[in-house]
Amino acid sequence: MTSSDLVELRRDLHRHPEPAWREFYTTARLVDELETRDLDALYVGPEVLSEEDRMAVPGEEELETWFDRAREAGAREDILDRLRGGYTGAVAVLERGEGPTVALRVDIDGLPITESDGDDHVPFSGGFHSENEGYMHACGHDAHATIGVGVLDAVAESDFAGTLKVFFQPGEEQIAGGKAMAKSGHLDDVDYLLAVHVGLDHPSGEIVAGVNGFLAVSHFEATFTGAPAHAGAKPEEGDNAVQAMATAIQNLYGIPRHADGATRVNAGVVEGGTASNIIPEEASIGGEVRGETTELMQYMEEKGRRVVRSAAEMHGCEVDVSTEGKAPSARSDEELVSIVSAVARANGGVESVIETDALGGSEDATYLMQEVQDNGGLAAYVGVGTDHPGGHHTRTFDVDEESIGLGVEVLAGAVLDIASSRP
Amino acid sequence: MTSSDLVELRRDLHRHPEPAWREFYTTARLVDELETRDLDALYVGPEVLSEEDRMAVPGEEELETWFDRAREAGAREDILDRLRGGYTGAVAVLERGEGPTVALRVDIDGLPITESDGDDHVPFSGGFHSENEGYMHACGHDAHATIGVGVLDAVAESDFAGTLKVFFQPGEEQIAGGKAMAKSGHLDDVDYLLAVHVGLDHPSGEIVAGVNGFLAVSHFEATFTGAPAHAGAKPEEGDNAVQAMATAIQNLYGIPRHADGATRVNAGVVEGGTASNIIPEEASIGGEVRGETTELMQYMEEKGRRVVRSAAEMHGCEVDVSTEGKAPSARSDEELVSIVSAVARANGGVESVIETDALGGSEDATYLMQEVQDNGGLAAYVGVGTDHPGGHHTRTFDVDEESIGLGVEVLAGAVLDIASSRP
Amino acid sequence: MTSSDLVELRRDLHRHPEPAWREFYTTARLVDELETRDLDALYVGPEVLSEEDRMAVPGEEELETWFDRAREAGAREDILDRLRGGYTGAVAVLERGEGPTVALRVDIDGLPITESDGDDHVPFSGGFHSENEGYMHACGHDAHATIGVGVLDAVAESDFAGTLKVFFQPGEEQIAGGKAMAKSGHLDDVDYLLAVHVGLDHPSGEIVAGVNGFLAVSHFEATFTGAPAHAGAKPEEGDNAVQAMATAIQNLYGIPRHADGATRVNAGVVEGGTASNIIPEEASIGGEVRGETTELMQYMEEKGRRVVRSAAEMHGCEVDVSTEGKAPSARSDEELVSIVSAVARANGGVESVIETDALGGSEDATYLMQEVQDNGGLAAYVGVGTDHPGGHHTRTFDVDEESIGLGVEVLAGAVLDIASSRP
Amino acid sequence: MTSSDLVELRRDLHRHPEPAWREFYTTARLVDELETRDLDALYVGPEVLSEEDRMAVPGEEELETWFDRAREAGAREDILDRLRGGYTGAVAVLERGEGPTVALRVDIDGLPITESDGDDHVPFSGGFHSENEGYMHACGHDAHATIGVGVLDAVAESDFAGTLKVFFQPGEEQIAGGKAMAKSGHLDDVDYLLAVHVGLDHPSGEIVAGVNGFLAVSHFEATFTGAPAHAGAKPEEGDNAVQAMATAIQNLYGIPRHADGATRVNAGVVEGGTASNIIPEEASIGGEVRGETTELMQYMEEKGRRVVRSAAEMHGCEVDVSTEGKAPSARSDEELVSIVSAVARANGGVESVIETDALGGSEDATYLMQEVQDNGGLAAYVGVGTDHPGGHHTRTFDVDEESIGLGVEVLAGAVLDIASSRP
Repeated sequence: MTSSDLVELRRDLHRHPEPAWREFYTTARLVDELETRDLDALYVGPEVLSEEDRMAVPGEEELETWFDRAREAGAREDILDRLRGGYTGAVAVLERGEGPTVALRVDIDGLPITESDGDDHVPFSGGFHSENEGYMHACGHDAHATIGVGVLDAVAESDFAGTLKVFFQPGEEQIAGGKAMAKSGHLDDVDYLLAVHVGLDHPSGEIVAGVNGFLAVSHFEATFTGAPAHAGAKPEEGDNAVQAMATAIQNLYGIPRHADGATRVNAGVVEGGTASNIIPEEASIGGEVRGETTELMQYMEEKGRRVVRSAAEMHGCEVDVSTEGKAPSARSDEELVSIVSAVARANGGVESVIETDALGGSEDATYLMQEVQDNGGLAAYVGVGTDHPGGHHTRTFDVDEESIGLGVEVLAGAVLDIASSRP
Repeated sequence: MTSSDLVELRRDLHRHPEPAWREFYTTARLVDELETRDLDALYVGPEVLSEEDRMAVPGEEELETWFDRAREAGAREDILDRLRGGYTGAVAVLERGEGPTVALRVDIDGLPITESDGDDHVPFSGGFHSENEGYMHACGHDAHATIGVGVLDAVAESDFAGTLKVFFQPGEEQIAGGKAMAKSGHLDDVDYLLAVHVGLDHPSGEIVAGVNGFLAVSHFEATFTGAPAHAGAKPEEGDNAVQAMATAIQNLYGIPRHADGATRVNAGVVEGGTASNIIPEEASIGGEVRGETTELMQYMEEKGRRVVRSAAEMHGCEVDVSTEGKAPSARSDEELVSIVSAVARANGGVESVIETDALGGSEDATYLMQEVQDNGGLAAYVGVGTDHPGGHHTRTFDVDEESIGLGVEVLAGAVLDIASSRP
Repeated sequence: MTSSDLVELRRDLHRHPEPAWREFYTTARLVDELETRDLDALYVGPEVLSEEDRMAVPGEEELETWFDRAREAGAREDILDRLRGGYTGAVAVLERGEGPTVALRVDIDGLPITESDGDDHVPFSGGFHSENEGYMHACGHDAHATIGVGVLDAVAESDFAGTLKVFFQPGEEQIAGGKAMAKSGHLDDVDYLLAVHVGLDHPSGEIVAGVNGFLAVSHFEATFTGAPAHAGAKPEEGDNAVQAMATAIQNLYGIPRHADGATRVNAGVVEGGTASNIIPEEASIGGEVRGETTELMQYMEEKGRRVVRSAAEMHGCEVDVSTEGKAPSARSDEELVSIVSAVARANGGVESVIETDALGGSEDATYLMQEVQDNGGLAAYVGVGTDHPGGHHTRTFDVDEESIGLGVEVLAGAVLDIASSRP
Repeated sequence: MTSSDLVELRRDLHRHPEPAWREFYTTARLVDELETRDLDALYVGPEVLSEEDRMAVPGEEELETWFDRAREAGAREDILDRLRGGYTGAVAVLERGEGPTVALRVDIDGLPITESDGDDHVPFSGGFHSENEGYMHACGHDAHATIGVGVLDAVAESDFAGTLKVFFQPGEEQIAGGKAMAKSGHLDDVDYLLAVHVGLDHPSGEIVAGVNGFLAVSHFEATFTGAPAHAGAKPEEGDNAVQAMATAIQNLYGIPRHADGATRVNAGVVEGGTASNIIPEEASIGGEVRGETTELMQYMEEKGRRVVRSAAEMHGCEVDVSTEGKAPSARSDEELVSIVSAVARANGGVESVIETDALGGSEDATYLMQEVQDNGGLAAYVGVGTDHPGGHHTRTFDVDEESIGLGVEVLAGAVLDIASSRP
């Protein structure tokens, strides 16, 4: 794929941002593109996901709305049919003789953010801004998916000996898709895994060979159900779900700190009740807990569940707690980071190489990294700098398209280096 | 107006339920009807309201939506023009020589409830159910307004000596309109005030001469504004509006009970935050406080404001508290209750008379009662029984139209009795 | 007993104030006095108490301390021996032929208040102030016990036909003794019960024929036990009893108000923890709930227990909840109030008679009243006015000794009137 | 001083454990001992303390009790007189020609712990256990003070060129004395500071050249004052200090975590109220906040004060917050750690040397370390292993007296090495 082909693909994806499990157009477009290659296998939808591990899957109606939208946008019907029910994502496989199995993971989903229509916002002035009102590729996953295709082509054209698998993962923004892909079986024989992210406040020309500092995270939704009553006439007949919720919030933030490292908790979205004069029957908390390690996140999760359950009991309510997304912590393996670093330093287009840097947020690539590491393999999360006018997750985010090609070069270079040096 | 005319009017009103300050069709329909009478004065919209005392007035867009809907439903343009900006309601005046000034207050607004479309729901099977989707006359105010017109006619046709004023009040359901009408000046010369409510679990044929036990009430909306931050990366940079809200809720319910009588508090509708991983910037509580007396309600109001203010401060948030509706407590005067009772007992259609009964809820007719009592006049709140299949404020509420006529008879009878016995 | 004998007795009791289940000197002194009468029965200690219904009994060491103190103060050894283990109180019985069984209940315990040593405090200047440092008869129970003996004598000397039982009840201040005496069996045949209290802000010469408005009450002690940990080094290893306690307090005050009447809740005494840098292992709440009726108190009790239990669970703590005192609500029977009122009006020493008045607090005479009423008898709680310089439960409380004699006259008069008019 | 002299001194100090600002016997004993040396200066009491920086000074009565106890135990009157008012501690100065100024800081206070009287507890079986009932040297400060004297002697007998200052600091256990000594002026010319602690779970023969990981800490006492009221009769008249306290506790634990590092908060000791049936007038929280850095501790302190203040306001209470002890964070300088490490490795009695280790708790030696570092000097906190049967701050804690001599050797060696290598 030429450089301008890559840009064209990225722009088409940018025009069609889709959130978790609704990446119908995106998957279909990528599969359509990949089918023209001489691949050894191309797995799609249900074939690349462990069904029971999908999280935060939206309701049927919501899925259908996006399905129809994808069709109207021109996605191929035969591919769409394979994605029904929100089974998005794909895995492309290239086998080139004896050698290690190397995997590249890219994510493909967009965000519920309304894209800027300012004249200085390139996607707008350039005519490729979002066609899905209220949604936007504001974190560069359009570039990631494009890099995935680019690396596949670059490796296919090389003298690579081994197997390359490119994972196009849905639902990263909601940390909803990583586990399902990690548990799909496609990672079982992978010896080396590279994941990639553009930007992260690093400029074009800069490579971070190993990103670390992922907080393990778990999103939850707690719904309290009590009994309504007239607040003036019969206050004692209510089981007040808002009181339960408030008690839970106060005590969630009060979960003890932990000597082993950083923890986090947030009651990010709350709502409850129907009218000023009705004792609230229902209330909910959409929140998250995090930990510097997976164990610390689990510590928060257990304490959090106890808080929520006891708060419900205290006010005569039922509570339903669901997990809406999850990701463990993980670390880039130094051995693999060294390879990426050496390849980057050798690349003329790279102006600066940072050995390791901390993310400070969460990512569900960690599920895939952990899976490979648990199997005895190595994993690294690579940052590809790109000048981005607005911050990640803002209306004016954009990528410097030049950095897509550089990312392809470095990652493909790393794949080749791994294959040649590791039998 | 004949009995069947009354029914026809009630059904037309029933078809067009409108909430507070949006009673455009209702007011226009009533004014259109009243203009055909030989009235001495008919005040409309801004003429019957103290502007600064209107509470919970919706935004312009919302008002326009309902304004347009009323026009489309056939309301007279010239009357509608007088109601622009949500100035609904009317006062009809009949002067018939020397005598006391007697007032009747009826309310005219509907509720945000979706009406039943069951075959056993008479308005549905009878073809006069709500044409405003999601709204319904589920508390009988359609009957109240009709009774207002009926009493006016009945008194006009009698040998009544004195002045009769009928107040068609908007916004009772949100206790939003009573004060504005009470402070309009039209009550200044009123010697006797009767207010009326149908149903209240009393069957057709039963009259409650004096309803009491109104709790004073105040609705508030408290909006907390803090500062957002990434919950994983920078938790310390947020000013958490949801924590402020939860602290406020816990302490609102903990306001001390009062030795002087019953108090109430409710955090009925809450919401806050935008995403699981963002420290919430905004949160709100829509709630109410009540008291057995106005003083007790004010005690709760003061303590409640202190709680809300301190909770905001505690978490570095601003808080804005607005009053969204209010009503004092009030008592029916025994002297007037006796008159109503005597008239009711003398009426052949009345099967049972209850001297006084307690409501246990709130009502903003109390503003008008208090105004008249403060001026040295007397007031009574009269219950007119009606068989109602569903409870008040439920989808299947309906009135027994026979009771409308009986209500007119008893109330008109009371007006005449007052005028003849009280010079 | 002459008037000066009564005064002497009262002063001796005043010198020896003793709290619940420690009224060793008081009981012995009364029994010593009563044994000189020609009584038909005199029950003491274990004979007048239902063992399982004693509440808030102190530990052995505490009991022994007071037991020894009573001996040192000169209490008769043989009587003391019958009171061992904190079985205090007595019932004196006078049988005088055919007639109803009438009971009088007086309480005998003192308060943990240090008595004033001001020159204007009569017990101090008069040389009969408390000899038990830190304790005081600050609520007039010394006068009550004296009235009990006085009434017994007055009735014995009259032509009374019937049975009179005088109950000298321990532990009223902690509402700890009423139930045990009510369930002792001695009330089973009682037809009429009078209870008496001096003062209550009524002056000497005033009689309240029937006191009402007792709130049912229950005292509880909730002790939370968690696990300690170093707050700096291992915060996650603690199970924080103070967090559990704080959560419980917040939610106890938030128990919903009740439409059926007044309720109360108070976390009156709290403590917890051992050092600033240790996660608190233990914490406790000494509190109470009340209700306008016994049912309302029970409603508060149930909700309160649920709050306390859930708060403990929430923080990984155990909680132990004990009842430390309890009393139901009760009402004086109008029939009996009328008798007392008539007798009082006929007494020349009485200047003013109030038919009924509300207490607004709690009293465990209600256990005895309820027991008699449940058996078909009548009960009334009589107020005997007395000028008291300081308020009840203050260091300068004192009674006007003149009112003791008047109280005896009115109560003995009522007993005689009951016997003569009720066969 | 011979080895057996050191042991004798340590045992005498062990017999007289004294808490913060009450180290009368201890200071007098040390001064008495030091006066026999050929010192260049010996500062005592007020001369070694910045008055305004003393924290948690007890009341006069408490001070006098301990003062008298010290006199009775045989402390020299003339020295005691210089310590009146709780001005304890001393600084001994040795000037030996040109060279750097080196300081050693040892702490001298005991703990409110009752010492074991088990036969296997050496101080008990050896006859030198605590003579101050309820207090104990349970953290080895008796050994520290002894090491201070030992190092002074060892250096005095060497060819040391420079100035040596030994700081005998009061009140470490309550982090109450470090600041006052740090700000006394005696550190102004200090180039190198060594602080020492025995044990810390390191066995005899092991040296930790540089202890790190001190959490900055601040102890506070928050006292809420409201208004009492009868909980049954007048609940609305109270301003409930326990409600304020509970609200504060809930929100103290909810202070947001911080991205820059570990924070801690604890409400360690709480109490409030006087009786179940009285709305509590007073309540207090004795607690602490910590931070991985001084800035993080201050962040917690500021948020904590806001919580406490707002909680008081919310419930109509006043609140008084006092600081009861404080210490910053600090780090051992690597340069100085290397010197200690080299000296230790060269010592035949040392079996194992650990370069650096983390404490995980707090210490107010950090005030002195920070003062020296701020002046451009270097500081290190040295751990001297000692077999201790019970843990620190337990009833069975004891030190292996052999390790005292080894500590003296290593520290004196370090002082000499500094002086010889650093001009």
